[in-house]
Amino acid sequence: MDDAGHMTPDEFRHRGAQLVERIARYMEEVERYPVLSRAEPGSVRARLPDAAPERGEPFADVLRDIDEVILPGLTHWQSPNFFAYFPANASGPSILGDLLAAGLGVQGMIWATSPACTELETHVLDWLVDLLGLPQGFRSGAAGGGVIQDSASSSTLTALIAARERASGGAANRHGVGRGSGPGDAAARRLTVYISRHAHSSVEKGVKIAGLGRDNLRLVEVDGSHAMDPAALEAAIAADRAAGAVPAMVCATVGTTSSGAVDPLRPIGEICRRAGVWLHVDAAHAGSATICPEHRGLIDGVELADSYTFNPHKWLLTNFDCSCFWVADRAALIDALSVLPEYLRNRATDSGAVIDYRDWQVPLGRRFRALKLWFVIRHYGAEGLRAHVRHCVALAAWFAAQVEESAEFELAAPVSVGLVCFRHRAGDALTEALMNRLNETGALYLTHTRLDDRLVLRLAVGAPATRRAHVEAAWTRIVETAEALAEETRSA
Amino acid sequence: MDDAGHMTPDEFRHRGAQLVERIARYMEEVERYPVLSRAEPGSVRARLPDAAPERGEPFADVLRDIDEVILPGLTHWQSPNFFAYFPANASGPSILGDLLAAGLGVQGMIWATSPACTELETHVLDWLVDLLGLPQGFRSGAAGGGVIQDSASSSTLTALIAARERASGGAANRHGVGRGSGPGDAAARRLTVYISRHAHSSVEKGVKIAGLGRDNLRLVEVDGSHAMDPAALEAAIAADRAAGAVPAMVCATVGTTSSGAVDPLRPIGEICRRAGVWLHVDAAHAGSATICPEHRGLIDGVELADSYTFNPHKWLLTNFDCSCFWVADRAALIDALSVLPEYLRNRATDSGAVIDYRDWQVPLGRRFRALKLWFVIRHYGAEGLRAHVRHCVALAAWFAAQVEESAEFELAAPVSVGLVCFRHRAGDALTEALMNRLNETGALYLTHTRLDDRLVLRLAVGAPATRRAHVEAAWTRIVETAEALAEETRSA
Repeated sequence: MDDAGHMTPDEFRHRGAQLVERIARYMEEVERYPVLSRAEPGSVRARLPDAAPERGEPFADVLRDIDEVILPGLTHWQSPNFFAYFPANASGPSILGDLLAAGLGVQGMIWATSPACTELETHVLDWLVDLLGLPQGFRSGAAGGGVIQDSASSSTLTALIAARERASGGAANRHGVGRGSGPGDAAARRLTVYISRHAHSSVEKGVKIAGLGRDNLRLVEVDGSHAMDPAALEAAIAADRAAGAVPAMVCATVGTTSSGAVDPLRPIGEICRRAGVWLHVDAAHAGSATICPEHRGLIDGVELADSYTFNPHKWLLTNFDCSCFWVADRAALIDALSVLPEYLRNRATDSGAVIDYRDWQVPLGRRFRALKLWFVIRHYGAEGLRAHVRHCVALAAWFAAQVEESAEFELAAPVSVGLVCFRHRAGDALTEALMNRLNETGALYLTHTRLDDRLVLRLAVGAPATRRAHVEAAWTRIVETAEALAEETRSA
Repeated sequence: MDDAGHMTPDEFRHRGAQLVERIARYMEEVERYPVLSRAEPGSVRARLPDAAPERGEPFADVLRDIDEVILPGLTHWQSPNFFAYFPANASGPSILGDLLAAGLGVQGMIWATSPACTELETHVLDWLVDLLGLPQGFRSGAAGGGVIQDSASSSTLTALIAARERASGGAANRHGVGRGSGPGDAAARRLTVYISRHAHSSVEKGVKIAGLGRDNLRLVEVDGSHAMDPAALEAAIAADRAAGAVPAMVCATVGTTSSGAVDPLRPIGEICRRAGVWLHVDAAHAGSATICPEHRGLIDGVELADSYTFNPHKWLLTNFDCSCFWVADRAALIDALSVLPEYLRNRATDSGAVIDYRDWQVPLGRRFRALKLWFVIRHYGAEGLRAHVRHCVALAAWFAAQVEESAEFELAAPVSVGLVCFRHRAGDALTEALMNRLNETGALYLTHTRLDDRLVLRLAVGAPATRRAHVEAAWTRIVETAEALAEETRSA
């Protein structure tokens, strides 16, 4: 430490090397931990002192507590046997990119406060437009542009605010939702939002935060594949309009959380264009797949979208948080979110020649998140990223084939890119008991949903460390555990 | 690389050590860079290839581009000569905590997805209640609790949503802002929000996002120290209520961005209690100071607050993003923000024995941000953190004394803990020219605001590397540059 108590650069070298070594060892050992933490509520806190230390402690004590206090309390998202929720990809280059962002410690709220933070972000998001097969109109050189948000929840909320302002002519920002500038003002009409009933809960949360009211969120009927039925959407929009409401936004999902269902963007987009409704596309999980040309069909019609989001922190090897969000008309976004106090005024902003990303998001401040995405794309190259997606898709397909050939299990939905939904033919009780028993073993971790009012297990393949052997072992354990449970049921 | 193209643990050891070394060198060299980046708009992008690489590139190329592309495009927030905006503290232990969070790659959206991520956060925020002299009611063992948000903007938005729902009896979430369950419903009345006119722009942004409408944001008059006038607040609340509106929230600022003004919490809190209005306290910058008992007067009356936020990423040695947010009544927060889809249900959540932080914030997903705060508190100990604050306060006081003794300069506001607002007596033109000339030298960086309709320079002392010599050099350069400018003006 220096005389002010700060860690010196030399100490940082030494401690940093120790921590890098510890993380490398974690990468080597992560498979050995129970995937789902066995911690009981309160057990982590019970190992921590009641009060903060009055005097500084040696780093060795902190390192020890990583092993003794933190690791037993983790659910290991990077384990090759993690098949729950969605993947939360990390990778060596991504971790290093995040480390550099922390080490540089810049704050990219506006262009002037670190031009590289803004320009690298714009540039990498332009790269991704081409890599993912997104519309050229999303590029910053056109009328659109991309930005990194913390999560798809925030991307969706941002889209909702822009859509709300477009639908109300800016009146919601000025006067409040549902309140025009006077009696009879069209801006006082209800604003309605449309999703399939399998869309992510973040849309309902966003609708509430944006002051639109859950009552004005329409759950559109789905077809047999759990995807939004465009005819039902069109009817819902017409009914609301007839009732005096203003349809403001449709959120279509490419890869629902429950089953990976894909709402058909082209017919939905055509309906939105005719009705003048903002189309936002939430491809948080499945969107990574379109880096492979053979999966571009997932987003057929995306050129009709007003905004689009996908999360590299789910399946593109970039650790949380990193949600990419594009708009076709950046002016609509900036108009909805811009506030310019005197203390943020500067020559570059006044010139209009730069992007100030604070106007593209809810918070003011921002980390240099583009670094990790840049590191990842450069380390893997486009072909490496495609190979990662193809590897996971092949493993999911292999698993689904086992389910289909099995007498005890059945698929509960069409296989989506990296996600297999299945259930035991004996019904919900056995399926739920199976999930709990499997997760208790610590050998793997998977989670559930409900489809057609039946309990369904979800196997999401996507952790970078997952190999064929892990998926095979998972299937063997699932079959054997189900047999044991069925036997217990019979003898009970 | 392994056969799937991933960086192996051994490569991670090697690259990680290289990057740690590069960051240590940055710490040693940061003082040599021009503080404000000299990049022209587009200059960073001009050095980047038009398309992403098809094949992966060596890490050495990435390291080279850090020096050649990124560093020239940075504004160096960690420079000891950075006096602009507010400090954006980083520190060795904080960077290492963030590195560990990235390396573990867990997702703490709910307790079950990594119990340690939730419990360490709750625990460290309880520690901070005591360290900062906050009310015991904010502790998780009482009815309150703390959570880490990305920024004070998000903390304020979260408070606004909770206040909005309390004021509307939950009707805004259900039916939309301004829309009751039927004609004449009180929930259809306008909701009003109160700030001083020096409060941060994030409150206006939050009011717009929450659908309350900028028209319903009241800018309360300030006294001679630029702090909110409680009598004016009380009158504004009464006037709105008489006009049929429902006062929903007051946001008091402890340390405004412009001048560090401190709204008096006790009389404001008493007014809020009488009026049944949610009091949120934004102490984003100055809040770190209350770790020193001699600065607790800043928050006298804070026990009357419903919510409170301060940013360790500003002045408490913890790199962005880390904004701490407490509520006195966590149920009000959870009721306002909770949405529980099937795929997030789990035994721990159903038991009610755990905190699921997704219900305490806008996004669903969350990083393990408590690690860096824990690392910082353990490295420095309470006494080290207090020493950091005292060091900065003393430097600001020294600078202010020079201004007061100067014939050319004057203070533009009472000195706030780490912030000095001053101007040249010759007026706005010279003051602005001085700022631009100083920032162009690259030797230091400071920014401006307007107070009493006059341009004011702000010197915010807080970068961990700033020593007495840096502040002395800044003062000398300010004086000499002003003399040179005055001379140029005279000879023109």
